[in-house]
Amino acid sequence: MPETIPEGSIGLVKSSTFHFDQPLALACGETLEAYELVYETYGELNSARDNAVLVCHALSGTHHLAGYYSLEDRKPGWWENLVGPGKVIDTNRFYVVGVNNLGGCHGSTGPKSINPETNKPYGPAFPIVTVADWVESQSRLAQKLGIDQWAAVIGGSLGGMQVLQWSIDYPDRLRHAIVIAASSKLTAQNIAFNEVARQAIRTDPAFHDGHYYEYDTIPERGLRIARMLGHLTYLSDDIMAEKFGRDLRQESINFDYGIEFQVESYLRYQADSFVGTFDANTYLLMTKALDYFDPAASSGGNLSAVLAQATADFFVLSFTSDWRFSPQRSHEIIRALHDNDLNVSYAEIKSHHGHDAFLLPLPQYLSVLGAYMERIASECKK
Amino acid sequence: MPETIPEGSIGLVKSSTFHFDQPLALACGETLEAYELVYETYGELNSARDNAVLVCHALSGTHHLAGYYSLEDRKPGWWENLVGPGKVIDTNRFYVVGVNNLGGCHGSTGPKSINPETNKPYGPAFPIVTVADWVESQSRLAQKLGIDQWAAVIGGSLGGMQVLQWSIDYPDRLRHAIVIAASSKLTAQNIAFNEVARQAIRTDPAFHDGHYYEYDTIPERGLRIARMLGHLTYLSDDIMAEKFGRDLRQESINFDYGIEFQVESYLRYQADSFVGTFDANTYLLMTKALDYFDPAASSGGNLSAVLAQATADFFVLSFTSDWRFSPQRSHEIIRALHDNDLNVSYAEIKSHHGHDAFLLPLPQYLSVLGAYMERIASECKK
Repeated sequence: MPETIPEGSIGLVKSSTFHFDQPLALACGETLEAYELVYETYGELNSARDNAVLVCHALSGTHHLAGYYSLEDRKPGWWENLVGPGKVIDTNRFYVVGVNNLGGCHGSTGPKSINPETNKPYGPAFPIVTVADWVESQSRLAQKLGIDQWAAVIGGSLGGMQVLQWSIDYPDRLRHAIVIAASSKLTAQNIAFNEVARQAIRTDPAFHDGHYYEYDTIPERGLRIARMLGHLTYLSDDIMAEKFGRDLRQESINFDYGIEFQVESYLRYQADSFVGTFDANTYLLMTKALDYFDPAASSGGNLSAVLAQATADFFVLSFTSDWRFSPQRSHEIIRALHDNDLNVSYAEIKSHHGHDAFLLPLPQYLSVLGAYMERIASECKK
Repeated sequence: MPETIPEGSIGLVKSSTFHFDQPLALACGETLEAYELVYETYGELNSARDNAVLVCHALSGTHHLAGYYSLEDRKPGWWENLVGPGKVIDTNRFYVVGVNNLGGCHGSTGPKSINPETNKPYGPAFPIVTVADWVESQSRLAQKLGIDQWAAVIGGSLGGMQVLQWSIDYPDRLRHAIVIAASSKLTAQNIAFNEVARQAIRTDPAFHDGHYYEYDTIPERGLRIARMLGHLTYLSDDIMAEKFGRDLRQESINFDYGIEFQVESYLRYQADSFVGTFDANTYLLMTKALDYFDPAASSGGNLSAVLAQATADFFVLSFTSDWRFSPQRSHEIIRALHDNDLNVSYAEIKSHHGHDAFLLPLPQYLSVLGAYMERIASECKK
């Protein structure tokens, strides 16, 4: 028996795919001769074509921002909390676009796609893509969709990095840049966590140097470790204490290596469900894009200098308990924006949910982001 | 050509082993019929036998606190910075004892020891040991050494947990309890990090359910991941930024999965050197001892109630940037000690070295701990 779509959801949605024939020269020096991008749109592009909003996704995100693919679909898009009719990113007012990034594993060309040169999956031959490469590919998608200028480009975490890059590479193609729980570059600790995840995947015997598709296997053990570790860093110490504390799964301790504590159960469950839906080579690529992102590097580390190119109005948001990309990282971005006398709003949301907070319907978060989106909507033509 | 022993070191030392025939009933319900403990002593037990100090080790520590085994030995004992003649834990004044904990892999009976019942290594048949089990075994060692009462029991991290347990289980057998960078129980986040490490080891195909000795292999991949992750949590974000930042290993980015950043090089090196010296089954046991430690559990979570048994004077130390066992965890211990009107000193050492700080010769740390040890020495008979 089909379920009902929850009230307030955009409802049933579907993905589309564009094929691109124009070669894409990548930062790593390689060129993708052709590629596909899978995307979703919600709402209507107005006749002035000035109400389009691009949402950039994070490490494990996709183009599927909101809604359901069928009545049987158990989970909606990853930003269902924020995207929909009457919601903060209001699909009654905005034409909202989500796209799966190049190198992804949800429909856009990536490591598990067929390499036309070999007729086998790219695997490790898929080039390492960067945030700048993604922005370039997204700019081409915008052209295909007839969007000369975004009302806003929005993203959290790695998505926020894409927003920053958009503001630098195509300053006249976005009016607002909304950078949530992000950073202008990873710290050594961030890189170290990524490296542990990569080593877990790459040393899994089932990884086969990235050619695991040909062996009809996946590096499940490594991907599980990577996901558990990632998840752990998305949560705060406080929220883990509140959610799990030292609660046991059974009544007493068993003195064995089964699940003793609820937090172990939770992590294993997260790992198991991730393994079935995410490609290990894509995970590796995404962590590399994170590591490499450092737009100020070309200006000798001077973020203010590189952001001198930006013209958008900025809204920067951080969450107090986010230790992956702490508020301090947002402050660095804001200082560089102020150095350029740009119009900057900032909200430091009080939350004990850690980095994951950007996905959640926290009242203060929805309220300030909603107010900012309202401002953007009021600037669009009817 | 032999090296020279650095000035200030205790110099050449050697280990001893005691065999215990008295069965040891463990918290898990199993009994070790017989076992060995390897230990080292430094300095002389005075005639009043009141100047003995026990140092309890942490996850990867051993009985080898200080000195060198030979002139060719490249590294001294793990607490060389603090233990030696004229040092903070002064071997000219104290009789200092280090012991490898049961379940260890450096000489005391543990998973890689021969199980007399099977004439094969215990492997996973070695029972899970707890902090209380260790304290019981250490109390028997004390008896063999003729030490009725320790001047002090000292330990950092998991070692500090043993100190707490000593103060509860044998209140009249120690005069001072020095608890450094420890906690009265792990948080959910702590347990989660341990669980990721365990999963990495246990899902390594070379683990063979813990019987890897019989396959002439070791779960090297899993142990590497566990060590990288552990190491990462011992350091602070700040010290990693200072040590490595985003420094590249070569001049430019290679866009591949080799080592790009110095921090990656460091982690891989740490992992490689650990794998050659540490047993994976011991690593698992140690993380379980950490997870299970919660002396207040028997009093419904009331730490004050369980510490009502303690009579020692306490010195509690924490380090400002330690996010594994933050100063807040020490505050919890101190509150419970104060509830019992015990004599408590506390020092919150300003340091950006993270949890690892307890191993380092930081001036403020050496100074306050030295002053406290001076007090203890002055109380001992000549």
